[in-house]
Amino acid sequence: MSNEMQEGAADRPQREQVQSRRGFLALTVAGSAAAGLGVSPSTASAEPPRSDAAVNPRLFSFVGGKTGEWSVVEARAVVGDPLPPVERLGILNKAVPAVPDGAKWVLRGVTSNERYLTRAEKEQLAKKQAALGRPEASHGALIPIRKNAAWWALTQDERRAVLEERSNHVKIGLKYLPAVARRLHHCRDLAEAEPFDFVTLFDYAKADAAAFDDLVAALRATAEWKYVEREVDIRLVRVKP
Amino acid sequence: MSNEMQEGAADRPQREQVQSRRGFLALTVAGSAAAGLGVSPSTASAEPPRSDAAVNPRLFSFVGGKTGEWSVVEARAVVGDPLPPVERLGILNKAVPAVPDGAKWVLRGVTSNERYLTRAEKEQLAKKQAALGRPEASHGALIPIRKNAAWWALTQDERRAVLEERSNHVKIGLKYLPAVARRLHHCRDLAEAEPFDFVTLFDYAKADAAAFDDLVAALRATAEWKYVEREVDIRLVRVKP
Repeated sequence: MSNEMQEGAADRPQREQVQSRRGFLALTVAGSAAAGLGVSPSTASAEPPRSDAAVNPRLFSFVGGKTGEWSVVEARAVVGDPLPPVERLGILNKAVPAVPDGAKWVLRGVTSNERYLTRAEKEQLAKKQAALGRPEASHGALIPIRKNAAWWALTQDERRAVLEERSNHVKIGLKYLPAVARRLHHCRDLAEAEPFDFVTLFDYAKADAAAFDDLVAALRATAEWKYVEREVDIRLVRVKP
Repeated sequence: MSNEMQEGAADRPQREQVQSRRGFLALTVAGSAAAGLGVSPSTASAEPPRSDAAVNPRLFSFVGGKTGEWSVVEARAVVGDPLPPVERLGILNKAVPAVPDGAKWVLRGVTSNERYLTRAEKEQLAKKQAALGRPEASHGALIPIRKNAAWWALTQDERRAVLEERSNHVKIGLKYLPAVARRLHHCRDLAEAEPFDFVTLFDYAKADAAAFDDLVAALRATAEWKYVEREVDIRLVRVKP
């Protein structure tokens, strides 16, 4: 589940990459007479200090604590160390520079381009998948994962072969669409040393909870999962407004 | 040049990923009785606040300003906006939270796993490539690049086909090894909205400067380069100590 296949068109944050870069440039020229893209070299001198840099619009923060729209109903370490137990999970499409009062941890990740999908697979997924946030999707899961050094030492063709030709990651996932919606976030290449490589968020209706259990069990039985060295499975129920 | 092929074993920062994570965990349990990996669940409660998070050991900061080990001898925008002119470039294997006094910009990126290489290609590169920092490598180039939305909308198989089957990115690069050493840094999936997707650092002997010109010209003539929407070519000469 919580892995590279979960990145369809439906998974993009609302703001687009192009817009984000316009935003970035607009921010960099704030206070100058110039505006927007395609400006003269003089405006480039407003390349921003890092501390003023705009946040990547594809960044999501997952705050484990006492507030948030999801109630944590179960959390267990599948492999490796657990996360500290929390009552609630809050999900924010922005940076959270420090752990808020009452929270115990913050995980972060960015949605990104797909790393393994072929065009044919992407089209199959796009036809079947749903976006997060359907009214009936009262149940969910947050599954952070870290893969081991052996995985990252594989070349692209080798990782693809393990992920799909040997493990059927995409094919397994397809069986559970559109019931299970998901969004994959990458953490490994952030500037900070993050505890996980990926964080995947899922949601589904209560009636599909057993199917979700089947999905994660099927993926955990694959060759790909032998490379997982830390995995925490946090089950969620949406808090009624 | 400044792209996905430039990630060989020789390009890794000195500290390894595994070590970094040990460092991360050690930091998270600082002040607690527990130490190291494989510890009991209670130590997991020390998952760190973001503000105390360890820096990714694969992070490099490129500071354009008045100090640094490289003198900037030429800088030009190949496509899109230039960067503000600077006298020197400093390269640091750490975070630089704000633009230092006298500096005009800071670019950042992390080295990462290869995204396109096959095992056969990686082995070919590993046999021929040199690491940055050879005593004779008095000349260099920093080439930040941003690819357009069309590139990032391609699937993995499509990007690979453009990069290698149509553009011979790896094959072209191989011809200039070991003369030209390089290290690729990824910026697109940082938490901040960065102005570039990649930053590549090259070094070579003065006698290979013409060969380096040939290399970048060959790559800029490829199908892959039609997806480049911003590229700045900053030429460097090492400052004598």
